[in-house]
Amino acid sequence: MKLAVYPGSFDPITNGHLDIIHRGARVFDRLVVAVLHNSQKKPLFTIEERKQLIQDVTADLDNVEVDVFEGLLVHYVHNRQADAIIRGLRAISDFEYELQFASMMRKLDGKVETLFMMTNNQYSFLSSRIVKEVAQYGGDINGLVPPVVEQALKEKYGYS
Amino acid sequence: MKLAVYPGSFDPITNGHLDIIHRGARVFDRLVVAVLHNSQKKPLFTIEERKQLIQDVTADLDNVEVDVFEGLLVHYVHNRQADAIIRGLRAISDFEYELQFASMMRKLDGKVETLFMMTNNQYSFLSSRIVKEVAQYGGDINGLVPPVVEQALKEKYGYS
Amino acid sequence: MKLAVYPGSFDPITNGHLDIIHRGARVFDRLVVAVLHNSQKKPLFTIEERKQLIQDVTADLDNVEVDVFEGLLVHYVHNRQADAIIRGLRAISDFEYELQFASMMRKLDGKVETLFMMTNNQYSFLSSRIVKEVAQYGGDINGLVPPVVEQALKEKYGYS
Amino acid sequence: MKLAVYPGSFDPITNGHLDIIHRGARVFDRLVVAVLHNSQKKPLFTIEERKQLIQDVTADLDNVEVDVFEGLLVHYVHNRQADAIIRGLRAISDFEYELQFASMMRKLDGKVETLFMMTNNQYSFLSSRIVKEVAQYGGDINGLVPPVVEQALKEKYGYS
Amino acid sequence: MKLAVYPGSFDPITNGHLDIIHRGARVFDRLVVAVLHNSQKKPLFTIEERKQLIQDVTADLDNVEVDVFEGLLVHYVHNRQADAIIRGLRAISDFEYELQFASMMRKLDGKVETLFMMTNNQYSFLSSRIVKEVAQYGGDINGLVPPVVEQALKEKYGYS
Amino acid sequence: MKLAVYPGSFDPITNGHLDIIHRGARVFDRLVVAVLHNSQKKPLFTIEERKQLIQDVTADLDNVEVDVFEGLLVHYVHNRQADAIIRGLRAISDFEYELQFASMMRKLDGKVETLFMMTNNQYSFLSSRIVKEVAQYGGDINGLVPPVVEQALKEKYGYS
Repeated sequence: MKLAVYPGSFDPITNGHLDIIHRGARVFDRLVVAVLHNSQKKPLFTIEERKQLIQDVTADLDNVEVDVFEGLLVHYVHNRQADAIIRGLRAISDFEYELQFASMMRKLDGKVETLFMMTNNQYSFLSSRIVKEVAQYGGDINGLVPPVVEQALKEKYGYS
Repeated sequence: MKLAVYPGSFDPITNGHLDIIHRGARVFDRLVVAVLHNSQKKPLFTIEERKQLIQDVTADLDNVEVDVFEGLLVHYVHNRQADAIIRGLRAISDFEYELQFASMMRKLDGKVETLFMMTNNQYSFLSSRIVKEVAQYGGDINGLVPPVVEQALKEKYGYS
Repeated sequence: MKLAVYPGSFDPITNGHLDIIHRGARVFDRLVVAVLHNSQKKPLFTIEERKQLIQDVTADLDNVEVDVFEGLLVHYVHNRQADAIIRGLRAISDFEYELQFASMMRKLDGKVETLFMMTNNQYSFLSSRIVKEVAQYGGDINGLVPPVVEQALKEKYGYS
Repeated sequence: MKLAVYPGSFDPITNGHLDIIHRGARVFDRLVVAVLHNSQKKPLFTIEERKQLIQDVTADLDNVEVDVFEGLLVHYVHNRQADAIIRGLRAISDFEYELQFASMMRKLDGKVETLFMMTNNQYSFLSSRIVKEVAQYGGDINGLVPPVVEQALKEKYGYS
Repeated sequence: MKLAVYPGSFDPITNGHLDIIHRGARVFDRLVVAVLHNSQKKPLFTIEERKQLIQDVTADLDNVEVDVFEGLLVHYVHNRQADAIIRGLRAISDFEYELQFASMMRKLDGKVETLFMMTNNQYSFLSSRIVKEVAQYGGDINGLVPPVVEQALKEKYGYS
Repeated sequence: MKLAVYPGSFDPITNGHLDIIHRGARVFDRLVVAVLHNSQKKPLFTIEERKQLIQDVTADLDNVEVDVFEGLLVHYVHNRQADAIIRGLRAISDFEYELQFASMMRKLDGKVETLFMMTNNQYSFLSSRIVKEVAQYGGDINGLVPPVVEQALKEKYGYS
């Protein structure tokens, strides 16, 4: 049985993330969506809210689990005895950071393998940051995030 | 059981390719190295030679198979009922071509998934083309290709 | 009245090109699609076929004209007294070539301006070359080119 | 009549910006330079100072107007009934951000078109940020910004 | 006698920096490692600690000197009457910043020349920032920094 | 005494190459411009013509020598006992090729060092290939190549 971890901040989860989750869940026997809890950053959604939103939108995927981790990803992946890490690639700047990421992972733990999936073209411009920027000023984010996330964003910014 | 295909020209196989094969064979239950037979190009090694060299250097990997295909990769992958295609990424120019490749694959067959592995840093400069260029002028290719390929290149270029 | 020129080989025109033509025709008063006749290259479609296919798929656009040119684009643009050249941008490698292109244009004729449009995400992987590669092996190109071009490609490759 | 909007922070306007304004004013019938007022950032120059500096250096251009906007650019452009947005491209990192920008614009309003101009080679290294860094330490910024901006920067940093 | 300056923050020096220093010291008659003292940033190591760590790990290199500077690099280089500035290049994003850097340098002082060295492949993922991130969470940084720096990082983060 | 080699095809030398030669001759004690004789390619200018054109335009530089080499650059550099190789960098695609080049050089001979200079902004779009393309169709190449090369190109293409 092959287990993969898909780590991120997911503040909040977008349709681009959800696309990677669906595709990763088809390739691996089990997929863990691992939400990073970074106490030094101030996210829009709390760690519990972010986890709950992901659980809501992946409820139909039997082999997907949502979890939270702190500290180094390599330690978390080691503890979970995962076979691979999954990362989405959108653009060149992603590519460079991810190349550093994968090299560092291999240095820290030679056994864990990092696999990349190209983001679907229709979501290549999408990021949690840009969604928040648009939502903050009352712009239309329909189609960029799942409906439950759209609703949550409207509540955060007082548009609902 | 998860099956992945690793396609390429492998003219000839380098240590960079071999690194991807070893890592892919750990992540998937079965890995098929698929050598492209393109009748419009003139490779240095024949399709039989290329296949034989890969078989020689992967003989110790139980879950790796070497095969040959012609025409569109998507048709081959469909026929093999593969779960995923594996591709190595070295550099930005790779990235762009691969992004086009993955998009086209998804358009042609929405079920097949393309996964990318970053080439190990120590092989990031390596390509079959550059190995042939150096070997042609009697340069030292030790450490860039497996010994059996080094020997085959020397014979092709008359240095053995 | 502002006139723009959209130059290219169009061997053959794809839905990506057609998207740029529609958008350019909205921004400028008049748009000339200028097909390059390069006697040193061997295109799949003759210059007359390429021009005819573009005329067929732009017949509904009143302010679009299709023309043919040879030699340097800067001379053609000068003769047409165009205000701008339009170019599509898909990827980083496009970007670099286009940066060289625009710099050279400005050096050759300081008055002509080059404007770029980002290719629609859904066509970012698309090129005439990749369409021909897929069509040649009987792959499905529906949605990548207009129906009349799909038919023409099938005839060229003997699939119709 | 074709109207284009050239948005930015312009903190302060550089010779690179001014080059784009001159060129945009030749291609379009009317060009609006739209200064973003972002209450969450702390610019060096106030929104009034930034607007005034642009008006000073574009006074000779009859079809150029300077304006201020808050919130989402797409809303501003919609209200102005503009035909196009103009953006300058300097480098790959610009390219990626701008690709996201243009994709998001099209998602938010399918009618507005984003057009890019490559920054003149001699200004490709230039940004408001780097000009401020150099000016802050008393470095020579002659030729990087218009004289009136050079004077304003010297006053801000106490060198005049 | 040719003198080169290798500037940076070195917070702290990594094996990637040290590799550039060794190689630069072979090409030039004399190499000055110039540590930037930026009073507006809060480094992990003080300017004295950073200088001392570099002196410790370059003690065996006769033609290498460690120095500190404030303000504009171009002024420092001018005062030292250096023939060249040396910079390490790891990735595309480095490349772009460095291109801006070199252009600005040439604008500010046409006589100073900037030379680039590609970072050794095995250190291409390495940065002071990533080393600090890993060390902070108790990850293994052996091989990424010299032993004396590894010890200093452990003391800073309370792991020694 | 520090000796550097600046290798290339120089078919023909452009003002971009000449800029690198002038700058390299200031940083190193002696600079050898090494013209590659590749018997498998068909250059516009013969190896003797290319060498002569470079000698003509560098006659005023006392510490510059023009030479010809065949085969692997690393062998030539080794024979000349050079301290460094100089390469010009224009764009991202250059960067990637050059990164491969420098890595391969280090693999083949750990002692030879490759140093890069960023091409002057005003020549960043310039290449021998683009100059030939423009000259072939009678376009204006004044300012792109030295006058003696402009004359030689006109003669080759029958415009003189």
